[in-house]
Amino acid sequence: MDNSPVVAQADASLPNYTPENTLPVDSAGNKVGSDFDSLMMRRCLELARRALGRTSPNPLVGAVVVKDGEIVGEGFHPRAGEPHAEVFALRAAGESARGATVYVSLEPCNHYGRTPPCSEGLINAGVSKVVVGMVDPNPLVAGGGIARLRAAGIEVLVGVEEAACQQLNEAFVHRILYKRPLGILKYAMTLDGKIATTSGHSAWVTNQAARGEVHQLRAACDAVIVGGNTVRQDNPYLTSHQVGAHNPLRVVMSRHLDLPENAHLWETEEAPTLVLTEVGANPNIQEMLRQKGVEVVEFTSLTPDNVMGHLYERGFCSVLWECGGTLAASAIAQRAVQKILAFIAPKIIGGSHAPTPVGDLGFTTMTEALTLENVRWRVVGSDCLVEGYLPRQHQ
Amino acid sequence: MDNSPVVAQADASLPNYTPENTLPVDSAGNKVGSDFDSLMMRRCLELARRALGRTSPNPLVGAVVVKDGEIVGEGFHPRAGEPHAEVFALRAAGESARGATVYVSLEPCNHYGRTPPCSEGLINAGVSKVVVGMVDPNPLVAGGGIARLRAAGIEVLVGVEEAACQQLNEAFVHRILYKRPLGILKYAMTLDGKIATTSGHSAWVTNQAARGEVHQLRAACDAVIVGGNTVRQDNPYLTSHQVGAHNPLRVVMSRHLDLPENAHLWETEEAPTLVLTEVGANPNIQEMLRQKGVEVVEFTSLTPDNVMGHLYERGFCSVLWECGGTLAASAIAQRAVQKILAFIAPKIIGGSHAPTPVGDLGFTTMTEALTLENVRWRVVGSDCLVEGYLPRQHQ
Repeated sequence: MDNSPVVAQADASLPNYTPENTLPVDSAGNKVGSDFDSLMMRRCLELARRALGRTSPNPLVGAVVVKDGEIVGEGFHPRAGEPHAEVFALRAAGESARGATVYVSLEPCNHYGRTPPCSEGLINAGVSKVVVGMVDPNPLVAGGGIARLRAAGIEVLVGVEEAACQQLNEAFVHRILYKRPLGILKYAMTLDGKIATTSGHSAWVTNQAARGEVHQLRAACDAVIVGGNTVRQDNPYLTSHQVGAHNPLRVVMSRHLDLPENAHLWETEEAPTLVLTEVGANPNIQEMLRQKGVEVVEFTSLTPDNVMGHLYERGFCSVLWECGGTLAASAIAQRAVQKILAFIAPKIIGGSHAPTPVGDLGFTTMTEALTLENVRWRVVGSDCLVEGYLPRQHQ
Repeated sequence: MDNSPVVAQADASLPNYTPENTLPVDSAGNKVGSDFDSLMMRRCLELARRALGRTSPNPLVGAVVVKDGEIVGEGFHPRAGEPHAEVFALRAAGESARGATVYVSLEPCNHYGRTPPCSEGLINAGVSKVVVGMVDPNPLVAGGGIARLRAAGIEVLVGVEEAACQQLNEAFVHRILYKRPLGILKYAMTLDGKIATTSGHSAWVTNQAARGEVHQLRAACDAVIVGGNTVRQDNPYLTSHQVGAHNPLRVVMSRHLDLPENAHLWETEEAPTLVLTEVGANPNIQEMLRQKGVEVVEFTSLTPDNVMGHLYERGFCSVLWECGGTLAASAIAQRAVQKILAFIAPKIIGGSHAPTPVGDLGFTTMTEALTLENVRWRVVGSDCLVEGYLPRQHQ
């Protein structure tokens, strides 16, 4: 998942919550490279973001070729199966690449995959220096590309804007390290902690600006998951509502397939929908869904962890949980959620039994609560967006 | 209620939430007076705050006498029955007051009460100019003191730091205008909207910094109210936990007096406690409470509105509701709450039936929600404090 809006608007954060990872420093907190290096690496990130939501299982990568202080070539990785960022940038630079400095947000690859290794391409182009944002997150290959470049006599600087590079590809990094997509739980609640009224009405908790933020978020994610209850209650679209933007795969988890015959999610012209259920569940509904173009997959046991395993196999990096409290609790308990994005609207709706964002986790004392890490509070329109990560030991 | 910590730390607020009322402008948004005038008025407010929580039913007022650009006398109103701020400041200035400029955060009084009118005192002292922060909020007397001064040939400037002056005495102003104390609902909840676990455990939702903020808030309030359930579940102290600070009157609302025999609130050496109940409720418990020094008052009908009426009669300006969701909902519904102070801790506790800050208000659609006005989000330690006002039409 990409967090460009978050990073881009970091100056709107509360002063004591400016997170380290938006500063131009490496993971140890040291500034690497010159201001010009930072500027060029930020440009790489900007280019990389043009492919938001479209590169999985690959990362978002941007590259810039600089000669005599001028940009002579730019590129980014547009989607899996197409050339890497460095290839596009070198092509654009042409002969100017000789003796130039190449900036790239992720370590150049060093293996023959669907494309030849970028390390070779850089060597063949005759560049004199390569500036790398972050090393490959895969511990088995990390540093291989850099070592190959250095062996060829090319100067290599590593770690410019490293934190921002890590942030942009946090979902890809999570996928590589944990063999699961990054799970993001997103919800919107009132200032008194409700996601809907007692009767289930929830349109709208937040205002236009926050909803726009959610649409951007969806454009950056590979899939968005809800439960059957959300389909029945809210009949959502779950699209990014932006012309030309990526739409995530819309996923419905429904054990018994007690789903309505008509729902916006069954309109699959705009975006694909996948319904996950258990073996043998309501064959008529399965048939109805398939006829509408909805993909249906049956699981032996429909659990958040199994679903995340399936979505990993499909090559996904980031999965947005936009479900109600019951499924959210189950996803948290099964470590299918790493990150929380909570929108808070400054309004009071009341309701002793109105639904809240997270159902039972089995905690009886407040000390057991899962305290978020790297928390940021950010105002979005009149609402507040709280972003944080579940404790590492819980992931 | 005084909000000095909020105002003092306004620079820590989110940029787009810097409220108008912390800017050095009058209620129309215009800057009144010079920078020096603002500085002196800010000093008046600083002095006024020394009596935080002790002046009701009177306002917090500070005064400064300036001669040739130097402060030659300062004063503040320490408590009802003692002289007003101007009297102390003039006394301190002595003969220097002649020809001086006097700054005072609230319009000087013009009536004979427990003390002679300050307008007369200023005229007799021979001051040449009076700078006033805000006019008297009572529409029947507003401007009288200013007119008296002008009639005596004294130059008067009105509205310097008016918004800050209004903010400091917002509870006093509310009391005058609505014949009720200002009701402030304060609660602390997790990021998933719970004020306790399903089993009722709530120590602690927020961390030390937020709890310190609550203690300051109590020091500024005249009373703090909880229900019987909070006494039974949490056994709170409800004191300001600061040496020398004011403690509010601790008020328990309990219709049936099903209260424990021992509770921190019955220890009345440190702070007084008032138990409000209905006529004839459990005489044994009433007797037990009175023997411990707890005041007991019986109402025909124990409602938030009746309680606020009673506390108004006692001369209170500000009342802090620190109750659970059921009583909070009832207080909101009866317009006994004008202001919300919500602490949000970035932690997830879960619980489908865990208590939330506000119980049933009878709203069935999200559009009925009470949207807060003049909202501010401020980070306190690792938590966030959200401050806002219920819509005026609801007050």
